[in-house]
Amino acid sequence: MAHMQAASAENIRRDIENLNQFNATPGDGITRILFTDQELKAREYIKKRMEETGLEVKEDAIGNIFGTLKGSKPNLAPVWTGSHIDTVPHAGSFDGMTGVVGGLEALRIIKESGNTHSRNIQVIVFTSEEPTRFGKGCLGSRALAGDLTQGETTGLSDETGMTLAQVLDRLGYDKKQFPDIKKERGDVHGCVELHIEQGAVLENIGKKTGVVTAISAPTDLIIEVEGTQEHAGATPMPMRKDAMTAAARMILKIEELARTSDNPSTVATVGKLDIFPGATNVIPGKVRFTVDMRSDSFEEKEQILHKIQKNAEALVEIEGVRISVSIVSHEHPASADKHIVDVIRDVCQRQNKEYNVMVSGAYHDSMFVSRFAPFSMIFVPSRGGISHHKDEWTDYEDIASGVDVLAETLLIMSNEEVKQK
Amino acid sequence: MAHMQAASAENIRRDIENLNQFNATPGDGITRILFTDQELKAREYIKKRMEETGLEVKEDAIGNIFGTLKGSKPNLAPVWTGSHIDTVPHAGSFDGMTGVVGGLEALRIIKESGNTHSRNIQVIVFTSEEPTRFGKGCLGSRALAGDLTQGETTGLSDETGMTLAQVLDRLGYDKKQFPDIKKERGDVHGCVELHIEQGAVLENIGKKTGVVTAISAPTDLIIEVEGTQEHAGATPMPMRKDAMTAAARMILKIEELARTSDNPSTVATVGKLDIFPGATNVIPGKVRFTVDMRSDSFEEKEQILHKIQKNAEALVEIEGVRISVSIVSHEHPASADKHIVDVIRDVCQRQNKEYNVMVSGAYHDSMFVSRFAPFSMIFVPSRGGISHHKDEWTDYEDIASGVDVLAETLLIMSNEEVKQK
Repeated sequence: MAHMQAASAENIRRDIENLNQFNATPGDGITRILFTDQELKAREYIKKRMEETGLEVKEDAIGNIFGTLKGSKPNLAPVWTGSHIDTVPHAGSFDGMTGVVGGLEALRIIKESGNTHSRNIQVIVFTSEEPTRFGKGCLGSRALAGDLTQGETTGLSDETGMTLAQVLDRLGYDKKQFPDIKKERGDVHGCVELHIEQGAVLENIGKKTGVVTAISAPTDLIIEVEGTQEHAGATPMPMRKDAMTAAARMILKIEELARTSDNPSTVATVGKLDIFPGATNVIPGKVRFTVDMRSDSFEEKEQILHKIQKNAEALVEIEGVRISVSIVSHEHPASADKHIVDVIRDVCQRQNKEYNVMVSGAYHDSMFVSRFAPFSMIFVPSRGGISHHKDEWTDYEDIASGVDVLAETLLIMSNEEVKQK
Repeated sequence: MAHMQAASAENIRRDIENLNQFNATPGDGITRILFTDQELKAREYIKKRMEETGLEVKEDAIGNIFGTLKGSKPNLAPVWTGSHIDTVPHAGSFDGMTGVVGGLEALRIIKESGNTHSRNIQVIVFTSEEPTRFGKGCLGSRALAGDLTQGETTGLSDETGMTLAQVLDRLGYDKKQFPDIKKERGDVHGCVELHIEQGAVLENIGKKTGVVTAISAPTDLIIEVEGTQEHAGATPMPMRKDAMTAAARMILKIEELARTSDNPSTVATVGKLDIFPGATNVIPGKVRFTVDMRSDSFEEKEQILHKIQKNAEALVEIEGVRISVSIVSHEHPASADKHIVDVIRDVCQRQNKEYNVMVSGAYHDSMFVSRFAPFSMIFVPSRGGISHHKDEWTDYEDIASGVDVLAETLLIMSNEEVKQK
């Protein structure tokens, strides 16, 4: 097989640290919001590093940056890798940056290995994976999937009231070229995104590599329980219609439905809860809470949703409260391409790396890429599972190990003659 | 037995409506905070009405107002009735006012009935039953019980930083007379407070009169559950230490402990809950909630508290969360005087009134009066159980009916020669 030099943890550290100097909140995590000064400087840094690595640099009309390592048959559909460099406020140093910097390092060692490859290999910076500025995430990959049109960019506005269309125009992006962003099935041979896990599974089982078979899209609910607000001292227990205890019953039922699932990717979380009026000595008249449910099986999400609705009806009957279950989103999971998963597993075995086949509970740009191209992802461990927080951490050696897997995978894919189904 | 004219619903309506013209939030409930312009005017109104009713008016050094109907043996310990005229912000029209205006009407009909009575009968306006201005309730009755010294009035300050001592001084109350406020056991023959129920028990059972056998003092807890804050998508169910689900288990256990009690006065409420960080897609790392537990049995409150602590220990063991149970207050209930309760019941029977013997779940000035004098209370129905809210309502005819019971009770007590134990 191909001989390749090892990825350099030192290169990766340097690029991630340099990128994170472009930060609106030094000393308090990394804050780099789409098309702010910091983010624009980070873009310039990455483009410069792409050029230094010998890549051809291009940008589309929504700011997705493509660094291309030319293959011997550049007319074939290219192989993609990449991620994002924007952050949530007070974020960590690794979410997104790992896949961009790691992708760049992968292309460097492929190039320097001297192995031939037919297809172009591209490392991509997807515009604004995080929803921070315009309230909607994955702007770049969404546009690539045709799920964000130029017309829609005039409807997305930031806190100051400025629209995405205005910002793009001001920065010199040509709106006439917006329709060219969209990719069709067949345009891309396959995509492999390197990312930190953002959970603690790899750390807990002591493996360094995760091979992603699906991204479990969330189903988001808002549940509102209405009881009767009464004096906590003067209302005997049998007379109560307590919204908080009814909500507690639902919360435990929802946990049970996820916990007893045979599918380990199925999870459900109540992360936000408001209680009204919220006074020590008043029986709660209303409780509103969110449910974030995820699974790689849309069918199972449907079944659990149905059981949550049945549970609500039963509680209305038994406790005399009123309950509304609102569906905020209910999306289909994205399945990774079986062939790409097999390639990554083979590479891990050849590199003597123990890996874990797993489902991504978090969203990524790959979810939108899946709409027009085969994909998989490679995960590297997150210390303590912490993410979106300044304590987010992944050892640079672990990223380098992931880049070794990524580089060999991309090289194999770039020499595949037959397009994946 | 004594012949007495019926209490006038019209008199009661007029006095309550007049009092409630002194209101800082017209159109949005009644707001009459201690020693504000509105409250001072309400005090003047009540003193004037006491004088018009032929009572002798006095005020002590913390502003408790005493209207005295002289008996034939004025050296015997007097009989008391009364309540308060201050309110919480945006309150209803009846909480407190019912007992002051109703007490005044009771003394009027006793006087006009021409029946002789030995002991003085006094209607009292207790200073600031609500804790609104100085963060501590029952200031007047507390001082009467010796539970608030002049020294302590310099430590209680309002939002503007002004202390209770300063306010009293500015209004001309003589701090040298503060020690004279305190009553000793034997100083008062007995006290009967008329009050709205603030719950819906009387309404539900269709009775107009409640006879109170105890005031269940609250035990207030703050419970904090600490789990592990993690990504809601990336953390499988078995790896979670979810503070919200652990809190939900405690909340349902606490409800069960109160609901399965043999003592109908035992109640427990979780009215306030904060969840951290409180984001849809983050497993809660911390949940803090309050418990308001009440019972006429201190022993049962102790047992439930013990079981809550045991439940917390079990959850720590099973779920790996940390739980702290902080006791904010843990007070002894006040038992009403059996003899006074019997007198009230006899009066109800003579007046052909169906009554309900019950425990007050809410605090009242009578709780502090119980420390130096025998007491009971008479409850009148609250529509829908609503209180501390502008929709608070009690029919004036129901108050008049309660005043009929009160007046005959006070008259009987005022002719009792032997002091209650």
